[in-house]
Formats: sequence, structure tokens, C-alpha cells
Amino acid sequence: MISSNANGQIKELVKLQRQQRQRKKSGLFVVEGAKLVAEAAEYGKLEKLYLAESVSGREDERISHLLKHYPTELVSDSIFGEISDTVTPQGVLGLAAMPVYETEDLLALPGKRFLLLDDLRDPGNLGTIMRTAEGAGMSAVILSKGSVELFNPKVVRATMGAIFRVPYCYVESLPEIARTLKSQEIPVFGTAMNGDILYDEPDYTEGAAIVIGNEANGISEEMFAEVTEKLCIPMAGKLESLNAAVSAALIMYEMERQCRKKC
Amino acid sequence: MISSNANGQIKELVKLQRQQRQRKKSGLFVVEGAKLVAEAAEYGKLEKLYLAESVSGREDERISHLLKHYPTELVSDSIFGEISDTVTPQGVLGLAAMPVYETEDLLALPGKRFLLLDDLRDPGNLGTIMRTAEGAGMSAVILSKGSVELFNPKVVRATMGAIFRVPYCYVESLPEIARTLKSQEIPVFGTAMNGDILYDEPDYTEGAAIVIGNEANGISEEMFAEVTEKLCIPMAGKLESLNAAVSAALIMYEMERQCRKKC
Repeated sequence: MISSNANGQIKELVKLQRQQRQRKKSGLFVVEGAKLVAEAAEYGKLEKLYLAESVSGREDERISHLLKHYPTELVSDSIFGEISDTVTPQGVLGLAAMPVYETEDLLALPGKRFLLLDDLRDPGNLGTIMRTAEGAGMSAVILSKGSVELFNPKVVRATMGAIFRVPYCYVESLPEIARTLKSQEIPVFGTAMNGDILYDEPDYTEGAAIVIGNEANGISEEMFAEVTEKLCIPMAGKLESLNAAVSAALIMYEMERQCRKKC
Repeated sequence: MISSNANGQIKELVKLQRQQRQRKKSGLFVVEGAKLVAEAAEYGKLEKLYLAESVSGREDERISHLLKHYPTELVSDSIFGEISDTVTPQGVLGLAAMPVYETEDLLALPGKRFLLLDDLRDPGNLGTIMRTAEGAGMSAVILSKGSVELFNPKVVRATMGAIFRVPYCYVESLPEIARTLKSQEIPVFGTAMNGDILYDEPDYTEGAAIVIGNEANGISEEMFAEVTEKLCIPMAGKLESLNAAVSAALIMYEMERQCRKKC
């Protein structure tokens, strides 16, 4: 049993929880809780299991059947508290490999329903957006390199497993992706306060890309120049905008609705 | 200028930021940033202004014209950091009175579009839901007494000002509210994994109440027994549910869409 934070594995896990650089270098990240750990295993991404001493022997059933298939370390409760990113750790944690996708493969996916995130910064928003993207049946999520990192522990938690199921990639230039999509006759929609058409007016059923901008500044000027049509979400009251994850959800589910009604 | 945290006003502000009990006792809460402070003033709820030393003389214009109408205290930057709940304080903070509404007045509001929150716990979700409720033109938000407190600093920030504009109340028994609504022929809809009808099937245009449950456990059994119809939001992939604020947004905006298309 590991009971010292001087242990090399513990040091590595703490770094993986705290440092984007460490995650990027290793291609690894940490998943917490029985549900996410079991999903990491299901999608072939689980590398190693860590169990808190007090949980060992009475693990969740999703975990107990993993124990004979994966290398497992027992960790004292106090050290487990140090490697966990949550206030009340569940006592189960996995080291997982990041899913990796190639941009060109994503752009060739059927359905052609893309979400483009232009410097989205809030971890909770990104997690919620990935979760909603799975539910709405989006093909892929494409993020500008200035967007928040998907393997940040807060994002991972908020995705509720969608992190293993929604194809994604970070790109150097989001405007370039928009140009590529348009060359394949996929329209690129963006939301704006002074949008020209309501978000439920366009026909999304032949494929579409939706751009969601930064929480404070919206869509960047360079990206806005690539937008085919500016969408407006009607708003009563005196709000300037809706939350980014809410705007994304409304448009993704409008796409879902249209595709459901057409089929 | 206040430059000690032993100052009575500073002690009071710190307590108001940290303790629900203190907010409840006084009926006061703290708003941060020029936008929210200006909105507190606009809705007649601003009691006092606090300015950080380094901001004084170069305030946002929304604040400078308030200075002659409201008692204002200058606070040293380090003390301002202690009373602020944010990592990068804007240097402007207001003491505000909570808006108060009577349940029976809310139930009599025109439009009859109600959101009922059954032990919603996450501050970010509540803030986002209030913001979306304003945008979607909901009549009021009614919260079970076990729901997170609306004047928690995280909730206040996430509402983006909707906290001053969306009528709300906390109630002892949410099932009782459901019964009252039904007696007025307002249907009460709840979401469930095994819902009977899709969320965009019912006619919401004659008024409706939507119940959103707790993030982990959904709608309580007692409340579920009062639900007129169980709604289902279609989900691709392997998700068990959507985020509570997203589910709420999708149904509120479906109501908005129906009312917009009917009028």
C-alpha cells in the first residue's frame, strides 16, 4: 500500500491533476469515481487503477470486476485525499490515456453536425457542452487552441463520460476549419446579439457547423468573418446574452429536433 | 478610507459573502462589479457602495454617476481583496437588499410559465437557470426550501443581473405548489429518463409549470407524484441525463418557441 506522498506514482498523479503541461507531455489524465473509471475501461483507455484503503474490498461492482484486468495500487486514505481533485473523494481513481482524433477524420464523419468552440474558457461550460453534444448527437467538437483544456479535472467531471465518446480536436486555426467546412458546402453559423435570423429558422438537416464564442468577448473578429449566417436567440428581459453552454445546447438541440422530425 | 479588517462594515461584508445565515438575517447581499452594482441601483436595491482605492477617480461610468446618490466608502486595495469573492476583483462592490416576492402574487402572474426547482443544489446551475428564465420570458421561478440559496455569491454572479428581474420564492412544500397550480388548470411537467412524451410535444401556450430535480437524484418521489406528464428529452449516445440547467433551458425555450410562433 502506498502511504507516502514522496512515492513516484503519487507525485505523478498530483502533477497530472494540477498541470496541463504534465497531461500534455504524457497523454494521460486522471478520472475519478466508479462511473468514469468504468467508462475509461470500456473505451480501452484505462491504464491503472488506484483504490483508497477504506474502499478496498467493498468497491462498487463496476470496479470490482476491473481489478483482475488492470494493475491496481492500494493507497492510504490520507494520500488518496491528496491525489483526488474532489472535496469528498469516492476512493476510486484511474489513470487514463487521452482519446486522440485526427482533424481530417472528424471532418469526414457522417451527420456533419459540428460544434466549433472559439476560445471557450470556462471548464464547467466545456464539460457541459461535451455532455450536451453527446446527447444531441453531434458528430464532433472542434476547439480553437485558446480554448480551455478538455482534460482539466473540472471539465472531465462535468462531461459525465462524454469525454470518451464525443470526438474532438484542438486546431491551430478555427477560421481555417470554417473555410474547409464551407468548401464542402457545410454552412457555418454563429450567434450574435444582432443576429440576422432566429436560431430555429435555418435548415440544419444537411449538416451544419455552429460557432460558440468566448464567454466574455463572444466570437473573435477573424472567426466572425467566416460565419455564413448570424443567428439570434430571442431574449425577453434585459439580458445581453445567455450562458455559452446554454446557447450551444439550444442550437444543438434545434439541430436534433429537425433531424428527428425529418427522419 | 477603510484600511483595517477590524472595521465593523468590513466584518459585516465578509460575513455576508460567506454565511447564508447572515444574509437571511439581514435581507442583504453583496453584488460585485460595475454591471451588477448599477443594476442593483436601477431596481432600487442598492444600499451602499464600496470602492477600492485604486479604482476611485477612474470608476466605470455606470458607477461614477451613482456616487452622488449613494453612501460610498473607500476601501484600501488589500482590504477590498478580503471582501471580494472573486479572484480578480473589479474594485466595485455594493451592499444590496434582496428582492422579496409573495408566493400568491407569483402564482397570479400573467403568462403562467413557471419553473419549479426541486432541491437544485449547484450554485452555477441556479445562476444559469435564472439567467435563462429571464431570456425565455418565464413568469417566475419557485424553489423548494432544500434548493441552493439564490444570494450565494456564485449564484449572484452567474445570474448576470437576472436576480433583480426574475420573480422567485422559496416554498415550504413544492408538491403543494404543484397542487395549487393544477387546481388552476396549469399542467405540471417533469423530466424523467423514462418519460412518456417528448419535451416538444405538449402545448405549453396556455401556461405550464416545469419541474427540474436535484442534480444527483432527480425529482423527489413526493414531487414526482404531482407531475401531470413525464417529459423525455431525446438523448443519443450513452448519457443518463443532461445537466440540470441545460434540461431546464431546452424546455423553457421550447415554451418560448411555441408562444412566439402562436403570437
